[in-house]
Amino acid sequence: MSAQVTSPVRKTANSTTAEDRTAEICLTAARVICEKGYDAASMNDIAAACNLTKAGLYYYTTGKQDLLYRIIDYAMSLVEDNARKCSVIINAEERLRMIIHCHIMTVADGGGSIAILSEEMNALSPEQREEIIERKRAFLDLTRSTLHELKAQGRLNDLDPDIAALNMFTTILGIPRWYRPSRELSTEQIAEQVSSFLHKALLKN
Amino acid sequence: MSAQVTSPVRKTANSTTAEDRTAEICLTAARVICEKGYDAASMNDIAAACNLTKAGLYYYTTGKQDLLYRIIDYAMSLVEDNARKCSVIINAEERLRMIIHCHIMTVADGGGSIAILSEEMNALSPEQREEIIERKRAFLDLTRSTLHELKAQGRLNDLDPDIAALNMFTTILGIPRWYRPSRELSTEQIAEQVSSFLHKALLKN
Repeated sequence: MSAQVTSPVRKTANSTTAEDRTAEICLTAARVICEKGYDAASMNDIAAACNLTKAGLYYYTTGKQDLLYRIIDYAMSLVEDNARKCSVIINAEERLRMIIHCHIMTVADGGGSIAILSEEMNALSPEQREEIIERKRAFLDLTRSTLHELKAQGRLNDLDPDIAALNMFTTILGIPRWYRPSRELSTEQIAEQVSSFLHKALLKN
Repeated sequence: MSAQVTSPVRKTANSTTAEDRTAEICLTAARVICEKGYDAASMNDIAAACNLTKAGLYYYTTGKQDLLYRIIDYAMSLVEDNARKCSVIINAEERLRMIIHCHIMTVADGGGSIAILSEEMNALSPEQREEIIERKRAFLDLTRSTLHELKAQGRLNDLDPDIAALNMFTTILGIPRWYRPSRELSTEQIAEQVSSFLHKALLKN
Protein backbone atom coordinates (compact mmCIF):
# COMPACT_ATOMS: atom_id res chain seq x y z
CA MET A 1 0.00 0.00 0.00
CA SER A 2 1.73 3.13 -1.16
CA ALA A 3 -0.93 5.82 -0.58
CA GLN A 4 0.74 8.47 1.56
CA VAL A 5 -1.42 11.47 2.34
CA THR A 6 0.59 14.59 3.08
CA SER A 7 -1.59 17.56 2.15
CA PRO A 8 -3.58 19.40 4.85
CA VAL A 9 -7.39 19.33 4.94
CA ARG A 10 -8.86 21.66 2.41
CA LYS A 11 -12.45 22.27 1.47
CA THR A 12 -12.87 22.55 -2.25
CA ALA A 13 -15.62 23.26 -4.75
CA ASN A 14 -14.12 20.64 -7.04
CA SER A 15 -16.02 17.48 -6.12
CA THR A 16 -13.59 15.18 -7.94
CA THR A 17 -10.75 16.44 -5.80
CA ALA A 18 -12.83 15.98 -2.66
CA GLU A 19 -13.71 12.46 -3.79
CA ASP A 20 -10.07 11.72 -4.50
CA ARG A 21 -9.16 12.97 -1.05
CA THR A 22 -11.83 10.74 0.53
CA ALA A 23 -10.51 7.79 -1.49
CA GLU A 24 -6.96 8.56 -0.28
CA ILE A 25 -8.18 8.69 3.31
CA CYS A 26 -9.93 5.33 2.87
CA LEU A 27 -6.73 3.78 1.52
CA THR A 28 -4.68 5.17 4.38
CA ALA A 29 -7.31 4.00 6.88
CA ALA A 30 -7.17 0.57 5.23
CA ARG A 31 -3.42 0.41 5.83
CA VAL A 32 -3.80 1.39 9.48
CA ILE A 33 -6.65 -1.09 10.07
CA CYS A 34 -4.67 -3.83 8.31
CA GLU A 35 -1.67 -3.24 10.53
CA LYS A 36 -3.47 -2.83 13.86
CA GLY A 37 -6.79 -4.62 13.39
CA TYR A 38 -10.11 -2.76 13.33
CA ASP A 39 -10.71 -2.78 17.08
CA ALA A 40 -7.22 -1.61 17.98
CA ALA A 41 -6.98 1.11 15.29
CA SER A 42 -8.29 4.37 16.76
CA MET A 43 -9.60 7.40 14.88
CA ASN A 44 -6.54 9.21 16.29
CA ASP A 45 -4.24 6.65 14.62
CA ILE A 46 -6.08 7.04 11.32
CA ALA A 47 -6.08 10.86 11.52
CA ALA A 48 -2.33 10.87 12.27
CA ALA A 49 -1.60 8.58 9.33
CA CYS A 50 -3.62 10.96 7.11
CA ASN A 51 -1.81 14.03 8.50
CA LEU A 52 -5.13 15.32 9.76
CA THR A 53 -6.45 16.35 13.13
CA LYS A 54 -9.19 14.10 14.46
CA ALA A 55 -11.69 16.92 13.77
CA GLY A 56 -10.29 17.18 10.23
CA LEU A 57 -10.85 13.47 9.69
CA TYR A 58 -14.52 13.82 10.73
CA TYR A 59 -14.98 16.25 7.86
CA TYR A 60 -14.68 13.26 5.52
CA THR A 61 -16.41 10.55 7.53
CA THR A 62 -19.04 10.09 10.22
CA GLY A 63 -16.87 7.62 12.13
CA LYS A 64 -14.79 4.44 12.13
CA GLN A 65 -17.61 2.13 11.07
CA ASP A 66 -18.39 4.45 8.15
CA LEU A 67 -14.72 4.32 7.09
CA LEU A 68 -14.73 0.54 7.40
CA TYR A 69 -17.87 0.26 5.27
CA ARG A 70 -16.35 2.53 2.61
CA ILE A 71 -13.12 0.49 2.53
CA ILE A 72 -15.09 -2.75 2.20
CA ASP A 73 -17.42 -1.22 -0.40
CA TYR A 74 -14.34 -0.11 -2.40
CA ALA A 75 -12.78 -3.58 -2.13
CA MET A 76 -16.06 -5.14 -3.18
CA SER A 77 -16.28 -2.85 -6.24
CA LEU A 78 -12.83 -4.11 -7.34
CA VAL A 79 -14.05 -7.69 -6.98
CA GLU A 80 -17.21 -6.87 -8.95
CA ASP A 81 -15.16 -5.33 -11.77
CA ASN A 82 -13.25 -8.62 -11.94
CA ALA A 83 -16.46 -10.61 -12.01
CA ARG A 84 -17.81 -8.53 -14.90
CA LYS A 85 -14.57 -8.93 -16.88
CA CYS A 86 -14.45 -12.71 -16.31
CA SER A 87 -18.11 -13.63 -16.69
CA VAL A 88 -18.13 -12.79 -20.41
CA ILE A 89 -15.41 -15.37 -21.19
CA ILE A 90 -17.11 -18.35 -22.77
CA ASN A 91 -14.36 -20.98 -22.43
CA ALA A 92 -14.50 -22.26 -18.82
CA GLU A 93 -10.75 -22.92 -18.50
CA GLU A 94 -9.86 -19.46 -19.80
CA ARG A 95 -12.48 -17.98 -17.49
CA LEU A 96 -10.99 -19.78 -14.47
CA ARG A 97 -7.47 -18.62 -15.36
CA MET A 98 -8.74 -15.06 -15.66
CA ILE A 99 -10.66 -15.23 -12.35
CA ILE A 100 -7.48 -16.44 -10.64
CA HIS A 101 -5.26 -13.83 -12.28
CA CYS A 102 -7.61 -10.87 -11.66
CA HIS A 103 -8.32 -11.83 -8.08
CA ILE A 104 -4.65 -12.30 -7.20
CA MET A 105 -3.72 -8.94 -8.74
CA THR A 106 -6.56 -7.21 -6.88
CA VAL A 107 -5.62 -8.80 -3.56
CA ALA A 108 -1.90 -8.15 -3.96
CA ASP A 109 -2.42 -4.59 -5.24
CA GLY A 110 -5.55 -3.60 -3.32
CA GLY A 111 -3.61 -2.01 -0.50
CA GLY A 112 -4.98 -4.22 2.23
CA SER A 113 -8.60 -3.36 1.45
CA ILE A 114 -9.35 -6.92 0.33
CA ALA A 115 -7.77 -8.33 3.47
CA ILE A 116 -10.13 -6.10 5.47
CA LEU A 117 -13.03 -7.28 3.32
CA SER A 118 -12.28 -10.83 4.37
CA GLU A 119 -11.32 -10.21 8.01
CA GLU A 120 -13.27 -7.31 9.47
CA MET A 121 -16.81 -8.05 8.25
CA ASN A 122 -18.02 -8.60 11.84
CA ALA A 123 -17.54 -4.92 12.67
CA LEU A 124 -20.12 -3.81 10.05
CA SER A 125 -23.74 -3.22 11.00
CA PRO A 126 -26.02 -6.24 10.34
CA GLU A 127 -27.54 -4.50 7.28
CA GLN A 128 -24.13 -3.59 5.83
CA ARG A 129 -22.86 -7.12 6.48
CA GLU A 130 -25.82 -8.70 4.74
CA GLU A 131 -25.37 -6.46 1.70
CA ILE A 132 -21.65 -7.30 1.40
CA ILE A 133 -22.21 -11.04 1.91
CA GLU A 134 -24.76 -10.97 -0.91
CA ARG A 135 -22.30 -9.16 -3.22
CA LYS A 136 -19.48 -11.58 -2.28
CA ARG A 137 -21.71 -14.54 -3.04
CA ALA A 138 -22.07 -13.46 -6.66
CA PHE A 139 -18.31 -13.79 -7.22
CA LEU A 140 -18.11 -17.10 -5.36
CA ASP A 141 -21.03 -18.40 -7.44
CA LEU A 142 -19.27 -17.45 -10.69
CA THR A 143 -16.19 -19.38 -9.55
CA ARG A 144 -18.16 -22.37 -8.34
CA SER A 145 -20.17 -22.64 -11.53
CA THR A 146 -16.95 -22.40 -13.56
CA LEU A 147 -15.44 -25.29 -11.58
CA HIS A 148 -18.62 -27.34 -12.01
CA GLU A 149 -18.46 -26.67 -15.76
CA LEU A 150 -14.81 -27.83 -15.83
CA LYS A 151 -15.76 -30.95 -13.88
CA ALA A 152 -18.46 -31.77 -16.46
CA GLN A 153 -15.85 -31.30 -19.22
CA GLY A 154 -13.43 -33.67 -17.43
CA ARG A 155 -10.91 -30.86 -17.05
CA LEU A 156 -11.06 -30.51 -13.23
CA ASN A 157 -8.81 -32.62 -11.02
CA ASP A 158 -10.64 -35.21 -8.91
CA LEU A 159 -11.97 -32.65 -6.40
CA ASP A 160 -15.29 -31.45 -5.02
CA PRO A 161 -15.80 -28.20 -7.01
CA ASP A 162 -17.39 -26.32 -4.09
CA ILE A 163 -14.59 -27.14 -1.64
CA ALA A 164 -12.01 -26.48 -4.35
CA ALA A 165 -13.48 -22.98 -4.81
CA LEU A 166 -13.13 -22.32 -1.07
CA ASN A 167 -9.52 -23.56 -1.05
CA MET A 168 -8.78 -21.39 -4.05
CA PHE A 169 -10.16 -18.22 -2.40
CA THR A 170 -8.39 -19.04 0.87
CA THR A 171 -5.06 -19.28 -0.93
CA ILE A 172 -5.56 -15.98 -2.75
CA LEU A 173 -6.99 -14.05 0.21
CA GLY A 174 -4.06 -15.22 2.32
CA ILE A 175 -1.48 -13.48 0.11
CA PRO A 176 -1.39 -10.27 2.22
CA ARG A 177 -0.47 -12.38 5.25
CA TRP A 178 2.94 -13.24 3.83
CA TYR A 179 3.54 -10.86 0.91
CA ARG A 180 4.55 -7.22 1.29
CA PRO A 181 5.20 -5.26 -1.94
CA SER A 182 8.51 -4.11 -0.41
CA ARG A 183 10.02 -7.56 -0.79
CA GLU A 184 12.30 -8.38 -3.65
CA LEU A 185 9.44 -10.09 -5.46
CA SER A 186 7.15 -8.03 -7.71
CA THR A 187 3.37 -8.40 -7.64
CA GLU A 188 3.59 -10.00 -11.09
CA GLN A 189 6.04 -12.64 -9.85
CA ILE A 190 3.79 -13.40 -6.89
CA ALA A 191 0.80 -13.61 -9.21
CA GLU A 192 2.68 -16.05 -11.42
CA GLN A 193 3.67 -18.29 -8.50
CA VAL A 194 0.22 -18.35 -6.90
CA SER A 195 -1.53 -18.82 -10.27
CA SER A 196 0.75 -21.70 -11.12
CA PHE A 197 0.10 -23.31 -7.71
CA LEU A 198 -3.67 -23.01 -8.26
CA HIS A 199 -3.65 -24.16 -11.89
CA LYS A 200 -1.81 -27.33 -10.84
CA ALA A 201 -4.16 -27.83 -7.90
CA LEU A 202 -7.31 -27.46 -9.99
CA LEU A 203 -6.72 -28.34 -13.64
CA LYS A 204 -5.75 -31.64 -15.20
CA ASN A 205 -2.55 -31.57 -17.25
CA MET B 1 -15.19 -27.07 18.87
CA SER B 2 -17.30 -29.22 21.16
CA ALA B 3 -15.94 -28.40 24.64
CA GLN B 4 -18.96 -27.31 26.67
CA VAL B 5 -18.20 -26.38 30.24
CA THR B 6 -21.19 -26.79 32.50
CA SER B 7 -19.88 -27.56 36.00
CA PRO B 8 -19.52 -24.75 38.54
CA VAL B 9 -16.12 -23.64 39.83
CA ARG B 10 -14.78 -26.01 42.39
CA LYS B 11 -11.45 -26.04 44.14
CA THR B 12 -9.99 -29.49 44.20
CA ALA B 13 -6.93 -31.21 45.65
CA ASN B 14 -6.71 -33.29 42.49
CA SER B 15 -4.31 -31.35 40.29
CA THR B 16 -5.16 -33.31 37.15
CA THR B 17 -8.79 -32.28 37.48
CA ALA B 18 -7.73 -28.65 38.01
CA GLU B 19 -5.50 -28.85 34.95
CA ASP B 20 -8.30 -30.41 32.93
CA ARG B 21 -10.59 -27.60 34.04
CA THR B 22 -8.02 -25.01 32.99
CA ALA B 23 -7.65 -26.75 29.63
CA GLU B 24 -11.45 -26.74 29.22
CA ILE B 25 -11.54 -23.03 30.01
CA CYS B 26 -8.80 -22.36 27.45
CA LEU B 27 -10.75 -24.27 24.79
CA THR B 28 -13.94 -22.38 25.60
CA ALA B 29 -12.05 -19.07 25.59
CA ALA B 30 -10.60 -20.08 22.20
CA ARG B 31 -14.10 -20.54 20.82
CA VAL B 32 -15.26 -17.16 22.14
CA ILE B 33 -12.13 -15.37 20.83
CA CYS B 34 -12.53 -17.10 17.47
CA GLU B 35 -16.13 -15.96 17.16
CA LYS B 36 -15.73 -12.39 18.42
CA GLY B 37 -12.06 -11.58 17.84
CA TYR B 38 -9.59 -11.03 20.69
CA ASP B 39 -10.28 -7.32 21.16
CA ALA B 40 -14.05 -7.66 21.13
CA ALA B 41 -14.20 -10.74 23.39
CA SER B 42 -14.49 -9.58 27.01
CA MET B 43 -13.62 -11.51 30.15
CA ASN B 44 -17.35 -11.35 30.91
CA ASP B 45 -18.11 -13.12 27.61
CA ILE B 46 -15.52 -15.79 28.34
CA ALA B 47 -16.73 -16.26 31.93
CA ALA B 48 -20.33 -16.60 30.72
CA ALA B 49 -19.35 -19.19 28.09
CA CYS B 50 -17.55 -21.14 30.86
CA ASN B 51 -20.56 -20.88 33.21
CA LEU B 52 -18.36 -18.97 35.64
CA THR B 53 -18.59 -15.61 37.32
CA LYS B 54 -15.87 -13.18 36.25
CA ALA B 55 -14.27 -13.63 39.69
CA GLY B 56 -14.48 -17.40 39.21
CA LEU B 57 -12.66 -17.10 35.89
CA TYR B 58 -9.82 -15.16 37.55
CA TYR B 59 -9.22 -18.16 39.78
CA TYR B 60 -7.82 -19.92 36.69
CA THR B 61 -6.07 -17.08 34.89
CA THR B 62 -4.44 -13.72 35.56
CA GLY B 63 -6.26 -12.09 32.62
CA LYS B 64 -7.18 -12.12 28.95
CA GLN B 65 -3.61 -11.92 27.64
CA ASP B 66 -2.65 -14.86 29.87
CA LEU B 67 -5.56 -16.86 28.42
CA LEU B 68 -4.51 -15.90 24.89
CA TYR B 69 -0.93 -16.97 25.55
CA ARG B 70 -2.10 -20.32 26.96
CA ILE B 71 -4.34 -20.95 23.94
CA ILE B 72 -1.50 -20.12 21.54
CA ASP B 73 0.99 -22.17 23.56
CA TYR B 74 -1.44 -25.12 23.40
CA ALA B 75 -1.90 -24.70 19.64
CA MET B 76 1.87 -24.48 19.21
CA SER B 77 2.39 -27.69 21.19
CA LEU B 78 0.04 -29.49 18.77
CA VAL B 79 2.07 -28.16 15.84
CA GLU B 80 5.31 -29.25 17.51
CA ASP B 81 3.96 -32.76 18.07
CA ASN B 82 3.28 -32.89 14.32
CA ALA B 83 6.77 -31.67 13.52
CA ARG B 84 8.31 -34.37 15.70
CA LYS B 85 6.19 -37.08 14.09
CA CYS B 86 7.00 -35.90 10.55
CA SER B 87 10.69 -35.04 10.87
CA VAL B 88 11.68 -38.69 11.39
CA ILE B 89 10.25 -39.74 8.00
CA ILE B 90 13.19 -40.22 5.62
CA ASN B 91 11.35 -40.20 2.27
CA ALA B 92 10.66 -36.54 1.38
CA GLU B 93 7.38 -37.21 -0.45
CA GLU B 94 6.00 -39.32 2.40
CA ARG B 95 7.17 -36.63 4.83
CA LEU B 96 5.34 -33.91 2.88
CA ARG B 97 2.15 -35.94 2.73
CA MET B 98 2.36 -36.53 6.49
CA ILE B 99 3.02 -32.83 7.22
CA ILE B 100 -0.04 -31.91 5.15
CA HIS B 101 -2.24 -34.57 6.73
CA CYS B 102 -1.21 -33.84 10.34
CA HIS B 103 -1.48 -30.09 9.95
CA ILE B 104 -4.93 -30.24 8.35
CA MET B 105 -6.23 -32.56 11.08
CA THR B 106 -4.81 -30.29 13.80
CA VAL B 107 -6.29 -27.16 12.24
CA ALA B 108 -9.69 -28.72 11.58
CA ASP B 109 -9.83 -30.43 15.01
CA GLY B 110 -7.98 -27.88 17.13
CA GLY B 111 -11.13 -26.08 18.16
CA GLY B 112 -10.13 -22.73 16.76
CA SER B 113 -6.89 -22.56 18.73
CA ILE B 114 -4.79 -22.77 15.57
CA ALA B 115 -6.83 -20.01 13.94
CA ILE B 116 -6.02 -17.85 16.97
CA LEU B 117 -2.37 -18.83 16.70
CA SER B 118 -2.32 -17.43 13.19
CA GLU B 119 -4.57 -14.38 13.73
CA GLU B 120 -4.15 -12.98 17.23
CA MET B 121 -0.37 -12.97 17.61
CA ASN B 122 -0.30 -9.16 17.78
CA ALA B 123 -2.09 -9.18 21.12
CA LEU B 124 0.74 -11.10 22.85
CA SER B 125 3.51 -9.28 24.70
CA PRO B 126 6.65 -8.72 22.58
CA GLU B 127 8.51 -11.47 24.48
CA GLN B 128 5.67 -13.96 24.07
CA ARG B 129 5.35 -13.09 20.39
CA GLU B 130 9.04 -13.59 19.76
CA GLU B 131 8.97 -16.98 21.48
CA ILE B 132 5.99 -18.18 19.42
CA ILE B 133 7.42 -16.86 16.12
CA GLU B 134 10.62 -18.81 16.83
CA ARG B 135 8.64 -21.99 17.51
CA LYS B 136 6.52 -21.48 14.37
CA ARG B 137 9.64 -21.00 12.27
CA ALA B 138 10.85 -24.52 13.13
CA PHE B 139 7.76 -26.05 11.52
CA LEU B 140 7.94 -23.77 8.49
CA ASP B 141 11.63 -24.66 8.09
CA LEU B 142 10.84 -28.39 8.13
CA THR B 143 8.27 -27.86 5.38
CA ARG B 144 10.51 -25.60 3.31
CA SER B 145 13.45 -27.98 3.48
CA THR B 146 11.15 -30.86 2.49
CA LEU B 147 9.98 -28.92 -0.58
CA HIS B 148 13.59 -28.03 -1.51
CA GLU B 149 14.48 -31.72 -1.21
CA LEU B 150 11.59 -32.64 -3.51
CA LYS B 151 12.69 -29.97 -5.98
CA ALA B 152 16.19 -31.46 -6.05
CA GLN B 153 14.64 -34.88 -6.69
CA GLY B 154 12.57 -33.47 -9.59
CA ARG B 155 9.36 -34.34 -7.75
CA LEU B 156 8.13 -30.80 -7.09
CA ASN B 157 5.99 -28.98 -9.65
CA ASP B 158 7.67 -26.00 -11.30
CA LEU B 159 7.30 -23.71 -8.27
CA ASP B 160 9.46 -21.68 -5.92
CA PRO B 161 9.63 -23.98 -2.85
CA ASP B 162 9.55 -21.12 -0.33
CA ILE B 163 6.46 -19.47 -1.84
CA ALA B 164 4.86 -22.90 -2.29
CA ALA B 165 5.32 -23.52 1.46
CA LEU B 166 3.56 -20.22 2.24
CA ASN B 167 0.68 -21.03 -0.12
CA MET B 168 0.38 -24.45 1.45
CA PHE B 169 0.15 -23.08 5.00
CA THR B 170 -2.27 -20.36 3.90
CA THR B 171 -4.61 -22.97 2.42
CA ILE B 172 -4.51 -25.13 5.55
CA LEU B 173 -4.76 -22.29 8.07
CA GLY B 174 -7.77 -20.93 6.16
CA ILE B 175 -9.85 -24.06 6.77
CA PRO B 176 -11.56 -22.69 9.92
CA ARG B 177 -12.79 -19.72 7.85
CA TRP B 178 -15.12 -21.89 5.81
CA TYR B 179 -15.39 -25.24 7.61
CA ARG B 180 -17.48 -25.81 10.72
CA PRO B 181 -17.54 -29.38 12.12
CA SER B 182 -21.35 -29.11 12.23
CA ARG B 183 -21.59 -29.30 8.44
CA GLU B 184 -22.47 -32.51 6.72
CA LEU B 185 -18.78 -33.09 5.91
CA SER B 186 -16.59 -34.90 8.43
CA THR B 187 -13.11 -33.67 9.34
CA GLU B 188 -11.70 -36.69 7.48
CA GLN B 189 -13.54 -35.77 4.29
CA ILE B 190 -12.29 -32.19 4.55
CA ALA B 191 -8.76 -33.48 5.17
CA GLU B 192 -9.02 -35.68 2.08
CA GLN B 193 -10.21 -32.80 -0.12
CA VAL B 194 -7.64 -30.28 1.08
CA SER B 195 -4.82 -32.87 0.97
CA SER B 196 -5.73 -33.81 -2.56
CA PHE B 197 -5.81 -30.12 -3.60
CA LEU B 198 -2.34 -29.60 -2.10
CA HIS B 199 -0.82 -32.82 -3.47
CA LYS B 200 -1.90 -31.78 -6.99
CA ALA B 201 -0.62 -28.24 -6.44
CA LEU B 202 2.80 -29.38 -5.23
CA LEU B 203 3.73 -32.82 -6.53
CA LYS B 204 4.34 -33.97 -10.07
CA ASN B 205 2.12 -36.83 -11.21
